[in-house]
Amino acid sequence: MKFVLAPDSFKESMTAKKAALAMEKGVKAVFPQAECVIVPMADGGEGTVESLVSMTNGEIIKTEVIGPLGEKVIAEYGLLGEGQTAVIEMASASGLELIKPKERNPLLTTTYGTGQLIKHALDKGVRRFLIGIGGSATNDGGAGMLQALGVSFKDQAGNELPFGGGALHRLHSIDMSGLDERIKTVQMDVACDVTNPLIGDNGASAIFGPQKGATPEMVNNLDQNLAHFAEVIKQQLGEDIAHLDGAGAAGGLGAGLLAFLNAQLKKGIDLVIEYTGLEEQVKGADYVFTGEGSIDGQTLFGKTPYGVAAIAEKYSVPVIAFAGRIGNGVESLYDNGFTAIIGILKGVTTLEEALECGEENLVFAAENVCRVLKI
Amino acid sequence: MKFVLAPDSFKESMTAKKAALAMEKGVKAVFPQAECVIVPMADGGEGTVESLVSMTNGEIIKTEVIGPLGEKVIAEYGLLGEGQTAVIEMASASGLELIKPKERNPLLTTTYGTGQLIKHALDKGVRRFLIGIGGSATNDGGAGMLQALGVSFKDQAGNELPFGGGALHRLHSIDMSGLDERIKTVQMDVACDVTNPLIGDNGASAIFGPQKGATPEMVNNLDQNLAHFAEVIKQQLGEDIAHLDGAGAAGGLGAGLLAFLNAQLKKGIDLVIEYTGLEEQVKGADYVFTGEGSIDGQTLFGKTPYGVAAIAEKYSVPVIAFAGRIGNGVESLYDNGFTAIIGILKGVTTLEEALECGEENLVFAAENVCRVLKI
Repeated sequence: MKFVLAPDSFKESMTAKKAALAMEKGVKAVFPQAECVIVPMADGGEGTVESLVSMTNGEIIKTEVIGPLGEKVIAEYGLLGEGQTAVIEMASASGLELIKPKERNPLLTTTYGTGQLIKHALDKGVRRFLIGIGGSATNDGGAGMLQALGVSFKDQAGNELPFGGGALHRLHSIDMSGLDERIKTVQMDVACDVTNPLIGDNGASAIFGPQKGATPEMVNNLDQNLAHFAEVIKQQLGEDIAHLDGAGAAGGLGAGLLAFLNAQLKKGIDLVIEYTGLEEQVKGADYVFTGEGSIDGQTLFGKTPYGVAAIAEKYSVPVIAFAGRIGNGVESLYDNGFTAIIGILKGVTTLEEALECGEENLVFAAENVCRVLKI
Repeated sequence: MKFVLAPDSFKESMTAKKAALAMEKGVKAVFPQAECVIVPMADGGEGTVESLVSMTNGEIIKTEVIGPLGEKVIAEYGLLGEGQTAVIEMASASGLELIKPKERNPLLTTTYGTGQLIKHALDKGVRRFLIGIGGSATNDGGAGMLQALGVSFKDQAGNELPFGGGALHRLHSIDMSGLDERIKTVQMDVACDVTNPLIGDNGASAIFGPQKGATPEMVNNLDQNLAHFAEVIKQQLGEDIAHLDGAGAAGGLGAGLLAFLNAQLKKGIDLVIEYTGLEEQVKGADYVFTGEGSIDGQTLFGKTPYGVAAIAEKYSVPVIAFAGRIGNGVESLYDNGFTAIIGILKGVTTLEEALECGEENLVFAAENVCRVLKI
């Protein structure tokens, strides 16, 4: 009997790996002989590095880079066990959480540090990148990242543009000659769950600018600047990225990755499934357990349990999802690969206690579901 | 496919019948063709009348009787659907809840009203009684109940004793000649989960007196009075009930029922199982669902889900128990007929909300367990 245990993290309670191990404990209490395959999952956002590193016995690499406002920060990325794959969350180097709220200013923030992480990984021999782009502080079209990798963005006077989305209107010429050669032969996957274009009413500046500290006036400037950036790219590189789906992700970092680094934008959960090799494991399994802190109707929109269930459904493997909170609309999941949804709480409790007892509760719920399976 | 749905009530949230119907709704969502047998349960305490009446389409009979302090109260009992069985909770006529805390005084309180309920049921043609004796306000050895049924307790001067445990030391002679003839041919079952003797350190007065308002001095008096009561019974009726298990239940009502009415004391849950005919239903079932508001290690001590599980175990039918709260020590239930224990909460919530959403949560949990069963 084979169980694939593929939960996301239960936020503020358990990492995905801890959740998978709790499930395993529950399963083994009932089926001591069962094979349990631990596949800690994520959706391409927070926790993706941790899950993939822990699954592959990889390592977390820490290195000093230039932060979003030009200051030094210690950022990290994951190097997977086989040593040739890096998982980078851009927020580690260029994230909003690195800046105090009142200092947030997307005219100034740069993705330079993200480029440094990529370069650092290239130096380690990495040939495949999974880039998570959530939580960015930036609106620079990925210009900073590209500068770190050797691309030069010059103004009319031939001077290198300074950091930040506020300077892009001065872009006159792009010099690709310094671009790190190695980047051209690597696989660059970007976990991107948004479809916003680079510019316009649904673009990076209008939709995501305000949460990064942009005033309405700044949004206008930033949008015009990205439009100019796209125009120059179109003229000089022949790539029209202004309206591509996802080009507006992470302040236009999506656009930079698409235009310069030949990146592929995919849904986060699909990439995590690919990088974990989940499908191969699910193929021969009898049961798949998944879960997340909260499951509701929104789970269908790219959340981990949905991705896991979709894979399992392909191979007709039943899926049991566990959650600390079961919200409205979960009935829609039954038609999307979810066999059953099980709440793990043991009683009325405070949120603090619920988070603290998450592991114990998940062990118990998994065990009792197995006891039902055993009937 | 046959499900027996036999929960207790989920206190302050659902009656046993409502809980059973919620389970049915969950089952039918997954197995529309399944046969669902609804057996609302109880443990002989609160809710027993309601469960048995609702199950048999019986009726609640209300009648005016003499309350514990001699005042008039409207009490009720259940007449089961076949018309020959009464279910009486003594607390309805002679319960502690009928008296304001500062008026509680077991020297004075009487079980007379309980006897009146029995008499009322005899007049309706009842041939079988299930008497629940929890929650009594009394310490009169059942003398009041017996007086209502025609037994005479006289002092040395030949006067009838007044109500209350405080008068029993004056008992001189017992006159059975007036005892209702019909009582001799009925079946009298008493739901009794305590084993306390009538008198002594573990007797009715010492253990239960204080919660009924007895001071230490009163406890002494009451105990001596019950000892005298037992002594007279022994001399005049030839029955020695002072140290029988359960004689001390309900202020010695147990003793009165044993000595005068040829009653059988049984565990409450066993009687409810007998009166509901649960065993017959369980015999051919594929699954038994039970449950209660709270399940924990104490459930083994005579609680409804334990009784249900014990019956199901006899016929190797798997039992799934649902609860709003799963407390410590439930692992011990696995060895006692419980196949699995499932919490029904959907998330962190207040107690009020949890109670309010009990039905909805139970439907959901039952449905999802059935979805697992269907795998």
